[in-house]
Parts: sequence; C-alpha cells; structure tokens
Amino acid sequence: MTKVRALVLERQHELAIREIDLPLEVGPGMVKIAIHTVGVCGSDVHYYTHGRIGPFVVNAPMVLGHEAAGTVTEVGAGVTHLKIGDRVCMEPGIPDPNSRASRLGFYNIDPAVRFWATPPIHGVLTPEVVHPANYTFKLPDNVSFAEGAMVEPFAVGMQAAYKASIKPGDTAVVLGAGPIGTMVAIAALAGGCARVIVADLAQPKLDIAARYQGVIPVNIREKNLVAEVKRLTEDWGADVVFECSGSPRAWEAIMDLPRPGGTIVVVGLPVDPVPVDIAAASTKELRIENVFRYAHQYDRAIALFASGRVDLNPLISATFDFEDSVKAFDRAVEARPSDVKLQIKVAR
Amino acid sequence: MTKVRALVLERQHELAIREIDLPLEVGPGMVKIAIHTVGVCGSDVHYYTHGRIGPFVVNAPMVLGHEAAGTVTEVGAGVTHLKIGDRVCMEPGIPDPNSRASRLGFYNIDPAVRFWATPPIHGVLTPEVVHPANYTFKLPDNVSFAEGAMVEPFAVGMQAAYKASIKPGDTAVVLGAGPIGTMVAIAALAGGCARVIVADLAQPKLDIAARYQGVIPVNIREKNLVAEVKRLTEDWGADVVFECSGSPRAWEAIMDLPRPGGTIVVVGLPVDPVPVDIAAASTKELRIENVFRYAHQYDRAIALFASGRVDLNPLISATFDFEDSVKAFDRAVEARPSDVKLQIKVAR
Amino acid sequence: MTKVRALVLERQHELAIREIDLPLEVGPGMVKIAIHTVGVCGSDVHYYTHGRIGPFVVNAPMVLGHEAAGTVTEVGAGVTHLKIGDRVCMEPGIPDPNSRASRLGFYNIDPAVRFWATPPIHGVLTPEVVHPANYTFKLPDNVSFAEGAMVEPFAVGMQAAYKASIKPGDTAVVLGAGPIGTMVAIAALAGGCARVIVADLAQPKLDIAARYQGVIPVNIREKNLVAEVKRLTEDWGADVVFECSGSPRAWEAIMDLPRPGGTIVVVGLPVDPVPVDIAAASTKELRIENVFRYAHQYDRAIALFASGRVDLNPLISATFDFEDSVKAFDRAVEARPSDVKLQIKVAR
Amino acid sequence: MTKVRALVLERQHELAIREIDLPLEVGPGMVKIAIHTVGVCGSDVHYYTHGRIGPFVVNAPMVLGHEAAGTVTEVGAGVTHLKIGDRVCMEPGIPDPNSRASRLGFYNIDPAVRFWATPPIHGVLTPEVVHPANYTFKLPDNVSFAEGAMVEPFAVGMQAAYKASIKPGDTAVVLGAGPIGTMVAIAALAGGCARVIVADLAQPKLDIAARYQGVIPVNIREKNLVAEVKRLTEDWGADVVFECSGSPRAWEAIMDLPRPGGTIVVVGLPVDPVPVDIAAASTKELRIENVFRYAHQYDRAIALFASGRVDLNPLISATFDFEDSVKAFDRAVEARPSDVKLQIKVAR
Repeated sequence: MTKVRALVLERQHELAIREIDLPLEVGPGMVKIAIHTVGVCGSDVHYYTHGRIGPFVVNAPMVLGHEAAGTVTEVGAGVTHLKIGDRVCMEPGIPDPNSRASRLGFYNIDPAVRFWATPPIHGVLTPEVVHPANYTFKLPDNVSFAEGAMVEPFAVGMQAAYKASIKPGDTAVVLGAGPIGTMVAIAALAGGCARVIVADLAQPKLDIAARYQGVIPVNIREKNLVAEVKRLTEDWGADVVFECSGSPRAWEAIMDLPRPGGTIVVVGLPVDPVPVDIAAASTKELRIENVFRYAHQYDRAIALFASGRVDLNPLISATFDFEDSVKAFDRAVEARPSDVKLQIKVAR
Repeated sequence: MTKVRALVLERQHELAIREIDLPLEVGPGMVKIAIHTVGVCGSDVHYYTHGRIGPFVVNAPMVLGHEAAGTVTEVGAGVTHLKIGDRVCMEPGIPDPNSRASRLGFYNIDPAVRFWATPPIHGVLTPEVVHPANYTFKLPDNVSFAEGAMVEPFAVGMQAAYKASIKPGDTAVVLGAGPIGTMVAIAALAGGCARVIVADLAQPKLDIAARYQGVIPVNIREKNLVAEVKRLTEDWGADVVFECSGSPRAWEAIMDLPRPGGTIVVVGLPVDPVPVDIAAASTKELRIENVFRYAHQYDRAIALFASGRVDLNPLISATFDFEDSVKAFDRAVEARPSDVKLQIKVAR
Repeated sequence: MTKVRALVLERQHELAIREIDLPLEVGPGMVKIAIHTVGVCGSDVHYYTHGRIGPFVVNAPMVLGHEAAGTVTEVGAGVTHLKIGDRVCMEPGIPDPNSRASRLGFYNIDPAVRFWATPPIHGVLTPEVVHPANYTFKLPDNVSFAEGAMVEPFAVGMQAAYKASIKPGDTAVVLGAGPIGTMVAIAALAGGCARVIVADLAQPKLDIAARYQGVIPVNIREKNLVAEVKRLTEDWGADVVFECSGSPRAWEAIMDLPRPGGTIVVVGLPVDPVPVDIAAASTKELRIENVFRYAHQYDRAIALFASGRVDLNPLISATFDFEDSVKAFDRAVEARPSDVKLQIKVAR
Repeated sequence: MTKVRALVLERQHELAIREIDLPLEVGPGMVKIAIHTVGVCGSDVHYYTHGRIGPFVVNAPMVLGHEAAGTVTEVGAGVTHLKIGDRVCMEPGIPDPNSRASRLGFYNIDPAVRFWATPPIHGVLTPEVVHPANYTFKLPDNVSFAEGAMVEPFAVGMQAAYKASIKPGDTAVVLGAGPIGTMVAIAALAGGCARVIVADLAQPKLDIAARYQGVIPVNIREKNLVAEVKRLTEDWGADVVFECSGSPRAWEAIMDLPRPGGTIVVVGLPVDPVPVDIAAASTKELRIENVFRYAHQYDRAIALFASGRVDLNPLISATFDFEDSVKAFDRAVEARPSDVKLQIKVAR
C-alpha cells in the first residue's frame, strides 16, 4: 500500500481530495499508469449525490473516477504490447479471465467483474494506478488524452451500435440526448446508420447532437415523435430504436417506432419493472437487445478516433484541474443542459 | 359465389353446419383444394366462446378452421409446382406479395395479410376451398392428411425455433405445455436443442410432452423452476427460454432463467402490457425475440415430418367427422388437459 | 412498340445513336420515366469492346446503359408511392416476384432476373423507359440526378458492405481501386469501418480513393500489402477483405490478409476457376461471402446520399451530352486511371 | 518428470509401448486424470504412416492419442468444478488464455495453441495425464467412457454444424462418409437438419451412416450427386453443403449443390490450393465457412449424448487393450471401409 492523494467520496454528499492508501505494486501482467485525464460520469455523480446506485452502496471511503487516460510508467512481467511512455486509456472493469462468460468472449457480463468506482472498488481520480495490461490500450499519436478519456463512455455507444447489428444505411431513433444518448447516436452513425433521429425535451442537448452530420433532432415538447418517425420513413418505421433515456415513459409508445422486423436496443435502465406491450412487439416480430457496459470495444473506438471518422471533442464542455475536482463534481450536479462531458486533468 | 356447406360461427356461442356462399372460382396462380382434415385451434375456439380476439370481432357469420390439408382438384393458370391429385396443406395467411414486408422476405408481418378464420375472412371447415398456389405445399407420400393438418400449428413452433437461433446442443426452457408450448418444445429439439425443460402446472400435459426424447418436464406446482434450471445447468442458466404461456405471471421471474447472453423468445401473448424487469435483462445482455405466426416454415416442417425426425401423431387426441364438428368444438371448450389437438375429417 | 432514339450497340465495336422500337406502354404497377442521366458502366463498355460477357452474347442490336435517373412522366394502375414529376432512380434488374428466391427476400439471385443492357434485354440510353414501380425509387430534393445515376454502382458497394456484416470500428482491406473497389471502400466506411486499406497498382486511382476520410492507400508496386496490413493491425490482420480486382493474382496471398475469424467478401469475378488455399482459410476459420449485384440497397444508398454521409460527386469524372454518347464510350475504352465514372446527360 | 509407460511413436513407421518421462505435477488450475479410453484418430495414424502432417514433423519420440476419457485422480489449487472420482473427457488443445483470439472467444484459432499428439506435444496413450481443468469436462452418469472418448471427434462435427448456422428443417449434403463426414452428418441432423444427403464411393461407409434417421446415402459410383440433390430438392439445391472429403475433386462441381443463398462448410482440407469456381459461387451469393477443430463444443456434445438425442455407439467398430495398441494402429492403417472408430482401453 502506498499513501497517495485522491478524490475520495467519504460518504453521500462528502467529497474531498485527501491522502489514502492504495495498492501500487506492479505484478505480472500489470502496468502502472500516470493518470492524465479523467472524465466525470453520471454514475460518479450519482454516488456523490445519493451514496448508492441500486444494490451498490458506498459504505466506506471510495476514490471516484473511471473514464481515464494516462501514460505507462512501469511494466510488469510478461507484458509485451506496452512499454514505458506509451500513452494509454484503460477499461475500468476487470473480469475473471477464467469465468465461463469471459472464455465465451463476453467478459462484460461476467458476474465477478470488478469495476472502478463501484463500491467497494476504488476509482482512478488519483495520480497513479496499477491495471491489467490486457485492459490497457495504447493511444495513437493523433488521439489526445482528453479523447482517450472519452473512450470509456463512447464504448457504451459502440456496444449499443454493435448489438444493433446495423445494416449500412439504416435509420435509427435515439430516445434521450444525454451524454449516453449522444454517444449512442454518434456510434450508430459511425456504425453504418444513414441518419439518427434523436429525441429529447431539452433543446440545448438536441443542438449539440445536431452538430453531427446525419442527426435529425426532434424536440418532443413540440413534436409527436411517432408521427415524425412515420413521416421520415414513409410510414415504415425505424430500423433500430435505441432507448437511452431510462425513463419508464419511453416504453409507452416505443413499439410504434420500429419498422416491422426492426430492433430495439435498451441502453437506459429504469429502476423498477416497466409495463411493456408484448403484443405490439409480437405483431412486428421485434428483436430487443440489451446492453451492459461493453466488451472488445476499446480498440474499435480508438480506431474511429484515430481515422477521424469520430470526433468527440465537441462534447467536452469544460476541463478542471485535479485540485478543483470537487468544483467539477458540483458543476456536474447542476446538470446544465449544455454540458455533455466535464473532465479533470490530473497530470500537471 | 357457390353455395356450400360449412361450419359457420354465426356469433359468439352459436355454431352450426349450414349452407353459405363462398367464392370458388380458380383464378390465375390459384388452386382448388378438396379439404380432407382440419385441426381445431385455440383461436377458433376462442372466437366461438368469446366472439372476438382482441381487435378482431365476429360481426358477421364466419366459417371457422385454418389448420388444413386436402387434395388439389383444380389448377389455375400459371401454376407449375402443383397438379390435380396432389395431396397438400395450406398456409392460412395470404399476404400482399407487393408489400414492403413481403418483398423483404417476412410476409407474416405484412400488415395487409388476410388470415383464414380471422374476421372478416372465412376459414376452411367446408368441403372445398380456393387458395394461392404459392401458399399451398405438396405433402410427400409418407405424410398423412392428419399430419398435414398439423403443419400449421407446428409452423409456429418452427418459427420460434428459427428466431431462437439455436446452436447445436443448446438447453432450452419452454414455459407452458399447451398445444403451442408442446409444438415449440418439439421444434426446439428438432432445431438443435439437446434438451428442453418444459414447465407447466398440469401434469397430464407434461406427461404428453415428456414422451419426446430430450424433454425434461417440470411441474411448477411441485418444484421451483428457477432452482431446477440452475441445478440442470450448473448455475449457468438456459441458452433459450420460450415463453408460451401468455401469462403475465410468467414474466415475474423469467429473467432468472436464461444464461448470461441468452435469449428469450416470446410466443405467448398477454393481452395487456406486462411489467418487465429491464434492468435484469440488461445485466445479462439478453436478446428478446418476438414471434408472429411464421414465414417460410411449411416446407421445413414437412421435411421434418417426411424424414421421420418429427412425429406429431402422439399429439392428435381425437378425430371427429365433419358432421360432428360442433361436438369437436364443444370438446375443445372443455379443455381437457390430456387433449392436445382435436381434428375434424371433412372428407368422407 | 414506339420508335425512339437510343444508343444502340449493333454488334461488337459498332455503337450508334439511331431509332429503334421499344415498348413504352405503361401497364399496371409500372411507371414511365423520362431519363435524365445515365452512367457508363464497365459492363456496357465490355459489351462494346468484346461483344459479350461470359455466357451473355450480343446477338442482336441492344440499347446500352443501366445506371439511370430521371423523372416520372406517367403512372400505371395500382402504383401508390410515386406520382408524375417525382425525380427517381431505377434498379436495372427485374426479378420474377413469384420466384422462390424473390419470396425469400433475395431477388438478386433469382435465376429468372431480367437485367437492363444484358443481352437480350435493352438498356436505357434513350429518352424514355417504362419500369416496375417496385424497382423505382424517389430521390429526395437534395440528391441530384447525377447522384441518382450513381446509386446503381454504389448499390454494389452497399451489398458488399452488407454481406461483410461489418462491426463498428472494423478495419477492412479493398483489393483493387477501380470504380467498384472505390465504391466498396466508401460503402465499407459508411457501413461502419474505421479505416479501409485500399490496394492498387495505379497511383491516380489511389489518389482519388484517398480523398475519403478513413482510406489508407497502398500502392502495391511500392509496398508489400501483407506487411502493411500486419503493421497497421499489430500483426492481427484485417477484419474484412473485399476482393474487387477480379484478378486471379489477388487470390495468391489473400489468406494472409484477414485476422483469425475474419471475412473475405468476393466482389470481383475471375473468369476461370482460381487456385484457393483452403488449408490457410481453415486455419483462420475464415468466412467467405460472395456478392451478386444487390437487393434492397437502393433506399439505403439514397438515405446515405441524402443525409450527407456519402458524397460521390468527386467520382464523377466527366459528363457528356446524349448526342456525344459514343464519345463517352470511346473515352471509357481509354480507361484513363484518373477516370472513375463517366456520365451521359440524356435530358436537355 | 515421471517415468511412465506410453504408446510412443519413435519415428515414421516405428511405434511401441515403452517407458518415457512425462510431467505429472498438478499445478494450480490443473487436474490429473487416469486415462480410461482413447480413440484412434486419422491424424494419429497419419503421423505413424507418414511421420508428418504438413508442417508438423515428428522429429523426436512422441506419445500418440488425443481422443480421451478418464477419471480425475488429483485436483490442483483453485479448481472448483471438478473433484476426485469425476468421470471426464478432455479437450486436447490448450490455448493461451491471454491471446487475443482466446479472449474474443475463439481459442481454437489461437496460433499459440498446444495440441496433444501434434509435434512436439505428447498425446495421452498412457495411464495418467495432467490437464487444465478449464478444458476438462465432467461426464454424466449415463455417458460411458467409450462415448466420452467420442466427444473429441464429434466436436469437429458440432463445430461444422455450428458454423453452418443451420435453420430448423434444412437439407444438407455431406461430401465424404469417413469418420469425420459421418460425425458431421450426425451433428447436422442433431443441429436441426431434416435430412442429410451423404455422398461417398464406399458402400459400407454409406450403410453405416444410413443407420441414422434422416440420412439419405448416395453412392457416387452409381448416381450423379448433382442430379440427386436437384431431384430431392425440387431443383432448388441444398441449404448447406459440408465438404468433408478433403479431395480436390470434390471442388469441381461443389457450386452446383447449394441453393441460391446457401452455405458451404469446409471441413476436409486439401493439401494444395484447389481450383475454385468463384464466378459460380458469386451467382448464388454463397457463404463459405471454414472449420478448424472446435471451440466451446464439448459441453454441447455431452448434453446431446446425455439426453439420448445422439448415440455414437454404432460408430465404435472395435476396442483394443492398451497392450494391443500397436495392433489397433495396424488395423487402422488397413482402413477397412466398415471401420469407423477404433478405441483403446487404457484402464484395466
């Protein structure tokens, strides 16, 4: 254990930079990374404001932060694809490589996965961290640390786009233009959609999404979404609908959005069971896919950034120094509709 | 129009064999068929007892029956794959071949489909019927008329097995051992499952299903299904779960049955929206497929009957003469748990 | 039959604009279209220079041209989705809607398909044509006639991208930077690839492809393609390889390009059987997909043009008046490496 | 190292039971197994008769045998799913769990895989062996050791059936009725085919395959296979063709066998590149899948044995005592057409 400074959530509402003991030994297959940039995620903020997410409760002080990029400073035995000085980003979830799910290739749904900043696992808002090399990915020269710290949330969008089995030229609908909905819309376009109809109540969020070519924003305060989708698809419906709002209300008319034989991809999670119109889903023979984090998406996301086909810089709303981390979280709590992603620069 | 005898549902509860005018001209691409055997389907019975199924209301006298086999007696212009004397069975749904859904290959979800014995379309409990040759399938010599009349309900099972994308050696669960659940279980085994755990409250139904090699019956009055599935799969869960009960209660614990990354195929339709635990589906990244009738399954079902890999004769519980059709329906109304399929022999 | 002017290939090497009798009656389900723009395709040119393509021999005078856009001037009975004045483009292949392949959804491989400018079917380098409305697609206002006439060749790229089952962020290789290879590369990027490595011997072709973001050109006169792919993929290989050269030589080292579990999509057709290293394909468990024209791609291609995600204008090298059609073909015969697509404007 | 008796291939043609040093320490994650039954595989025999298979050359004495079942006698640290006394069978290939292929779920095509009885790795014709628990599978009580030793070759058939993406009721063709072709035919039927047309020159092999319901044997000395397939499929073609002969001649007319949009699964490996008619594959838009050993098939194969849906006992032609191992190999060299699988009982 090493005494280091970190952004520690003591308990609900109580957040401070202070010293804490963290394990920093570099075992076989591990690398040590000097953290450069960490994005503030809605889940970090939720632990701050609520002290829990569902069954995960903050019972002991926990370091926050899981969207991170940095530089390799030490390399453990047996690591061959990374070397000191490599700029990298990291997957925050560490599965059991021997679990049945991991061996089948879907390590994200291994029940034993340990995930940064999910109690009782510490996050990475701290200058240094040790991580398995298998879940550490080199950034090309033309991908910045700030972009590297965007790979994690974008990977959720990538997983949703992957699960959708998009066919080139598809039309999609994204319900909810929060950070995740926006990432999903961008990933869906990068993943083959010709156009993505993004629906939300907040105009500033729609304005940001609409900067991306192919996005058709629909403010559902002003327009009926079902009617809009019908108009835009000649009464056929969307090939794919991504539910990213997590709102039970989204499920009320969702079956009217896809075309016959279309797909719904569920990204947003309502807390309680939601009434679903099974008969309507049946009449159209819909396929419903569910997304849980991501697997095997980091290298794909990085490739899209590196080739210039995806540019997430317009989504970085503000960057804070590490010493101002609490300010960053307090701004996140404000939930300004024009804020997509706040980042904290840990490196000096 | 030709005056013919038929089993006519006058209105709810009122069923009789009487004369009625039906169109029997054989246009281009059509064939005339002398009906031999017709199965009694739950939907036929439901129109009899309730006068409606959801939005489909019996407002005028309607001939019942849609699970039929017979013999070609006349062939329209342009028909090349059938000739007089061919023994055949028929798909009861006639889509618009020019609809977008039909041209994409999923004619079953063409909203314009016209389906036998679904108001206002007449069924086929009558000696003769005219039908599109494209939806009329030749029976091999070793497939009886009785089996031919089983193709329609079995096609539902085939569609469910097809939608499941079964991998060879999968383990499935079927919820509900009624006629459709039993067909689904048999189709799932024929379609590649190593074993199918069939769950129901009625022991006689389970006993019939258990005659098929690979079926593991579970009486949920006596055993906890989730615990049984865990025990049989070493805590992993089933690859596929077929919901065939149509009961809202089935949805309460359904997410505990599949393995991580598994599939739920919905065959049974609850009338009203049902509370669904989206968060639980997400954690396992489940795929949920919905089934609506069938498309392109008749030739496949017939091939399985012809090769001996599927034998549905054990499911034919009793056969009635055409003149006793009302008796057949009244027995169906009794819903004896040992009855799977009642058939009516129209031909003398 | 109506006497009209058209670009007629009398026989090999003999091409002229002259009067010819063509059927212009508008039957049910048909529309009449005033042709505006027609692209010159390599197959048109091949009939001109060789008088045949494989089994298809020009035995009688035949109108050339099959990449066409125009304006609806007359609408047959039963047509609902088009009206006079609509700007449209057309699929040149007309399948039998009753064939087994068509009903299954893959009408492109219906053996009975009749295809414009494939002997003995006339093409559309003529002022007017009658066509099935089902294969006539409305162009949005922001898609020009010139772009409309690009839908046909781009649909081949779309079919290849569709068959590849691209996952978002994939890396592809395209062998051959001719018009089809370039279309495939653009479709693969639009369909989800992060980057496409395009290989050719002709630098001007590579330069044109390289204008598209995500294309990595490799001149195989100068560089070893296998080595380049390894270098760019950290020795893993490409997710998808599109063979678009049609050259037997492409097959010599093709198995070294994909990653384990990767895919080869065959677009280019060698005339004779080609030696294929089956053992090498096996060791990597490659999937090999074959593409024949396209099905259900027109609306998808148009959607990508309309949303701005695909812009093919840089590929239109020159446009000729109808009266200069023979000049257009003679320039196409030159096969200038900087020419991608030549078009003929039929409308005044 | 421990001195044990084993069937050792000294060099080409020289085979003997003798003492040899093998590592028998049980490390973490490993189990020790008392070998009960080992099947003789064509590859074992090929090393005996030729001293090599392609690039794999027997340069040093090597223990043969890789199709094995036995009983767990010792359990390493961290192993939870196995205990002493468990009856098991084992996968002979041990991949690097950290390789990219393994982590993606396809460990069989990990280039680093170490495979029993493939130089320089020893096989298991010896009384005891140590193996990773992850690749050791418990046999249910109703699956014998002899069947357990059949899991390995049947897994090849399972992988082929899995790669075929069989739809329930498909018609398949299997080229070659040797042990692998027969396993593939049985797996294809278990995996959903209604019927499998098995083609070979040797009538005794066809007679054995024909014992399985759904197999249609075709002796290609007597009948034209293409004509037979057309006759049996009403000129449509087979949904799937499994090439299991490894003969270059099989490729001459193979494209005439599948239906439009059908699939060829390549299991048999010709040594040299084979002329393939790409243009014919294109016209039908065929999918060609390649199979290399298997991944994740053992538990599926065992489940099919346990439920009674697959019975391979008819394929066990003779069983030899361990001391008669050389006799077993010499009989295998005879290649009697009525022999499918010879087994050696190592346990007393």
